[in-house]
Amino acid sequence: MVRRNQDENQLLGRIAQAFAGKRGSRHRALRLGIGDDAALYAPRSGYESILTCDWFLEGTHFLRKQHPADAIGWKCLARAVSDGAAMGGVPQCFLLSLALPPSHTGKWLDQFLGGLRRASRRFGCALAGGDTTRQERILINVSVVGEVRAGGAILRSGARPGDLIYVSGRLGEAELGLRLLQAGKIKTGNSKVWLRKHLYPEPRLRLGRWLAENRIATAMMDLSDGLSSDLPRLCAASGVGARIEETSLPIVKLPARFARGGVDPLKLALDGGDDYELLFTVPKGKARLVPGFLEGVRLTKIGEVTRKKKIILGEVGGLSRLLIPSGWDPFRR
Amino acid sequence: MVRRNQDENQLLGRIAQAFAGKRGSRHRALRLGIGDDAALYAPRSGYESILTCDWFLEGTHFLRKQHPADAIGWKCLARAVSDGAAMGGVPQCFLLSLALPPSHTGKWLDQFLGGLRRASRRFGCALAGGDTTRQERILINVSVVGEVRAGGAILRSGARPGDLIYVSGRLGEAELGLRLLQAGKIKTGNSKVWLRKHLYPEPRLRLGRWLAENRIATAMMDLSDGLSSDLPRLCAASGVGARIEETSLPIVKLPARFARGGVDPLKLALDGGDDYELLFTVPKGKARLVPGFLEGVRLTKIGEVTRKKKIILGEVGGLSRLLIPSGWDPFRR
Repeated sequence: MVRRNQDENQLLGRIAQAFAGKRGSRHRALRLGIGDDAALYAPRSGYESILTCDWFLEGTHFLRKQHPADAIGWKCLARAVSDGAAMGGVPQCFLLSLALPPSHTGKWLDQFLGGLRRASRRFGCALAGGDTTRQERILINVSVVGEVRAGGAILRSGARPGDLIYVSGRLGEAELGLRLLQAGKIKTGNSKVWLRKHLYPEPRLRLGRWLAENRIATAMMDLSDGLSSDLPRLCAASGVGARIEETSLPIVKLPARFARGGVDPLKLALDGGDDYELLFTVPKGKARLVPGFLEGVRLTKIGEVTRKKKIILGEVGGLSRLLIPSGWDPFRR
Repeated sequence: MVRRNQDENQLLGRIAQAFAGKRGSRHRALRLGIGDDAALYAPRSGYESILTCDWFLEGTHFLRKQHPADAIGWKCLARAVSDGAAMGGVPQCFLLSLALPPSHTGKWLDQFLGGLRRASRRFGCALAGGDTTRQERILINVSVVGEVRAGGAILRSGARPGDLIYVSGRLGEAELGLRLLQAGKIKTGNSKVWLRKHLYPEPRLRLGRWLAENRIATAMMDLSDGLSSDLPRLCAASGVGARIEETSLPIVKLPARFARGGVDPLKLALDGGDDYELLFTVPKGKARLVPGFLEGVRLTKIGEVTRKKKIILGEVGGLSRLLIPSGWDPFRR
């Protein structure tokens, strides 16, 4: 067991070659890439390394037949990079662990590596190394190393009562894109936008960095599991509660046919996953520094941090209710 | 998809708790551990980071029924740490990606975390973070960050013609341990040694570090797939060949019943995987600096690096043959 040989060497060689000699494949800090026992990365003095890892598994996070290989390649890196963006960091390099059925080591792999390479260039995050093996299901794990000025990372734990709560983008769009994909109905321009949000998410790297460098946010995280699941995590880490207002939420604008079908846009916005938008808190005195848009991305104030450790949703009509985490949990299926 | 919630929060909490407040769980360089979007690691000035990742998958790398959970926990970290040892580095922290069936989130998880924690303390490698999800099969991926003085890493590519080739330990012991486990025959003291080598490998951290700090080795790698597969990799990276002598190999001493059963100890030593011994090359002028044992671990000269790019095995009786990579390859099953 645990051995590899020529054929695995060839597979690693193909991965290395897909990233060789291209713009973005070399990185000032990557002293030794794929091919040795491990990679060597030279961190900058005065900076800390941000370390994160993410599963991306067939059947759990994507479907072999419905998700294009190119999108799987893009997204496995985008979502791992998003964790570092949520600290205000800048991605540097990543490790790719890939388990494939032999049937997927040809064209599928080429397309997967194509999407991964585009994401790697886009995010400035170079391939440092990896591990491959054979499995019946496609298994992907990505570890990303980022950097942030020492002491400058924005944690989940810094929110204080009275801080204002913001999100970037529109919530629920990626979930809507997933539903369109599953229904096989991609026609109008808007459908393409939502599908794109699901297949090719853009981690909010510039926003995260801007908030960190200007010391505007007190706490931050990315929305991967839905606001109703992620906001309680930020509040728990900070030892606070929150009150958000339904009327303030930047909710996905549902097409008429979905609204007629009984899909609730509020539920999409609260419980929909995969948006990779940033959730952050800002002291009231700095709120004037937060623009309505940053490089094309909408920033919306959705509520306020409270001393009382409950998460309250103020509803249309003046009522309010406790927000129940309702993102999907793999252990409660 | 891609969402987690209270139950996954609890699982992450249990993992964090298993490592909390224990010796070895905190690390001078780990500024922020499990629980936020990512971990923060403060690298030392003048050092480079060694980055590596390793699959450890049920059915491929271990068997759910035959391998104790405690050993799976130990070994998933030991083998990832071994990659950094093979560069002369010192492990610092690791990321754990764990996918489990719900049936394994109780006692099995406790035992797994017990073995992982022992390994973490033993290797001085702290848990930095991770990702969990649910799967039918047990899937593990471990990423390790180590450190080595800038420019001091020993790569695979430094071997030069005339260098002597060494290995640590005895080759084939872990493979023999696996066979004993599969046969269900663990009785004598020696059986326990071999089984231990298979279940609880000890990465050669001190040896790797000693060779790097004293600038003795020109090239190095760890033996994970068997000498017949790994030596060609080192030679390919260095653009050289090698001649090794059968009579010099530190071959596992086979018990009589196995020898009678037709098991070939030479084949175990050449093709057996999972030994996690170090393979390294030393210029002739420095050979006198290499002791016979280092902290209890045998060091054996097995051959010489050649200009001709072939891997030759000198056999007993004066004959010689090409060494064919025969470690197991997941893509050739």
